[in-house]
Amino acid sequence: MTKLISRSDVIRIATMDKTVPIVESAFAHMAKGDVLMPPKIYLDLPDFSGDFRAMPAYYKPKKKAGIKWVNSHTNNPKIGKPAVSAILILNDPETADTLAIIDAGALTGIRTGAAGGVASKYCARAESKTALYVGCGMQAYYQILAQQIAMPMEKIVLYDLNSESATKMAHQLATEINAEVSVIDNLETGCKSADIITTTTPGRAHILKSEWVMPGTHINAIGADAEGKQELPSALTKKCRIIVDEWEQASHSGEINVPIHEKIIEKSDIAGTIGQCVIGDIQGRNNDDEITLFDSTGLAIQDLALAAYIYEQCESASQFNFNG
Amino acid sequence: MTKLISRSDVIRIATMDKTVPIVESAFAHMAKGDVLMPPKIYLDLPDFSGDFRAMPAYYKPKKKAGIKWVNSHTNNPKIGKPAVSAILILNDPETADTLAIIDAGALTGIRTGAAGGVASKYCARAESKTALYVGCGMQAYYQILAQQIAMPMEKIVLYDLNSESATKMAHQLATEINAEVSVIDNLETGCKSADIITTTTPGRAHILKSEWVMPGTHINAIGADAEGKQELPSALTKKCRIIVDEWEQASHSGEINVPIHEKIIEKSDIAGTIGQCVIGDIQGRNNDDEITLFDSTGLAIQDLALAAYIYEQCESASQFNFNG
Repeated sequence: MTKLISRSDVIRIATMDKTVPIVESAFAHMAKGDVLMPPKIYLDLPDFSGDFRAMPAYYKPKKKAGIKWVNSHTNNPKIGKPAVSAILILNDPETADTLAIIDAGALTGIRTGAAGGVASKYCARAESKTALYVGCGMQAYYQILAQQIAMPMEKIVLYDLNSESATKMAHQLATEINAEVSVIDNLETGCKSADIITTTTPGRAHILKSEWVMPGTHINAIGADAEGKQELPSALTKKCRIIVDEWEQASHSGEINVPIHEKIIEKSDIAGTIGQCVIGDIQGRNNDDEITLFDSTGLAIQDLALAAYIYEQCESASQFNFNG
Repeated sequence: MTKLISRSDVIRIATMDKTVPIVESAFAHMAKGDVLMPPKIYLDLPDFSGDFRAMPAYYKPKKKAGIKWVNSHTNNPKIGKPAVSAILILNDPETADTLAIIDAGALTGIRTGAAGGVASKYCARAESKTALYVGCGMQAYYQILAQQIAMPMEKIVLYDLNSESATKMAHQLATEINAEVSVIDNLETGCKSADIITTTTPGRAHILKSEWVMPGTHINAIGADAEGKQELPSALTKKCRIIVDEWEQASHSGEINVPIHEKIIEKSDIAGTIGQCVIGDIQGRNNDDEITLFDSTGLAIQDLALAAYIYEQCESASQFNFNG
């Protein structure tokens, strides 16, 4: 029998306090070589302004294999559908049994948020108090929840080109987190007073200027997830200490893909992976003056580690016998 | 809502008379460029003598996208589980909606059988009367059903190193097909009297000798499905007119992968694809003396075309709301 796990089950089980340590541990196991993760493949559908991505992995610590099949369809919100949705198939790697099929839309958002939180914990200055969020969509929400689990801030500052989105987010957060939440419309001032800046924009324009970012800032660059996308000016990226989640994916489709392609930075400019930070192979930051940058692309192993936990916890799920 | 389609629904709907023309049409559409099919990716699990393969595709004629996640675990039969099983996710390429999740174990067997039937139709001599099956497992069964739909034979001859398997298959076929079915234990004589030879062995040994294959024979080589696997001696492959399902997959993991790797044959020795035969771009065979060889690796597009049909026909399926 295969468990069928819906979006609401995922949201109920994968709370951020559970998810942050799971994702942190997945990064560590990757750095130790306890995972297999072939490069993801893209099925581009230019006729529909969309694509699908196949993300297979094997997560040895939980003895699980599986694949996430996730799409990005930019026109979907216009017809009331999510831009990103996903299905994850979870298998026993020994017998290949299909243990569960899981709605992985919210899961993708939650594990991406958790990655930002983990990166802040290892890269931001210990005395960081103020986190600025550039872009106030759903992903910013998950980033904030994760930040407050991994390294709680006193002040959460929200900026969005559409100020209504920021205001709406502020109202939602008011009852959910224990921090002072404010909305700003001057991004320059916001950047200059932030210890941590997290960008979750569509990655098609640089709304943030290099000179606005002060020494000692940590940046989580979350939005770029395909070739040609970039949230930060290359000049800013070049002066940062860069930590990636995974080099191949980051250079292909993460924040660094454009400056790499333009030869403004190269592989030797990358300090290492977040997994290396977690296991202590490298330091997230070397001093209080560096600007650190975490380039998050989202790894199959984050999905699989979280899916394994959800599978274990979800006792009430529906079941289906595909072999019947 | 997502349809959940079980193995028994697949077997009920994907009868061979429906499947052969669907697979034939999929090959044709591929040759015309009406499909997208990125190379499949392997997740190798040497710890468990197994692997998973991710096979994404877009099938324009039916406006469907999707992915098959299929495993091959050679030790599974020892514990009473199938060596190969699969789950297929079927999507609307425009909205990315998950239309169906389909058990694709039997589907894989059926569409592979259909490919052999289509290849015989285009490559075997028109007056062919006798088909020999080397290896009498489940896949031989599907090959025979497809052969009798695509190009019916008068005589079906069965050979297996384990003669019990051949005898059992003969009994099963007796009531299902309209042909004389016999079991042989002398493979040399069997090859010499066959118009069509279909091999469905595990592809780890050449049990068939080059000099046993007479001019004019058509061979369907089905068993090789991973690097290093090969059913026929390279000397035999070298003297054949070779038709592949798809060059990249065939050279990587099909029957030709070993002789290509050993530089006994090269890309220019390949006559073309079965899709080119179907649309009349090339001929399956040029004369009655050639030995023709179809190298079947199994394409995502065969799966997707058949899944689209099953989805359309399966009105009684269970449904599940993953977004719920």
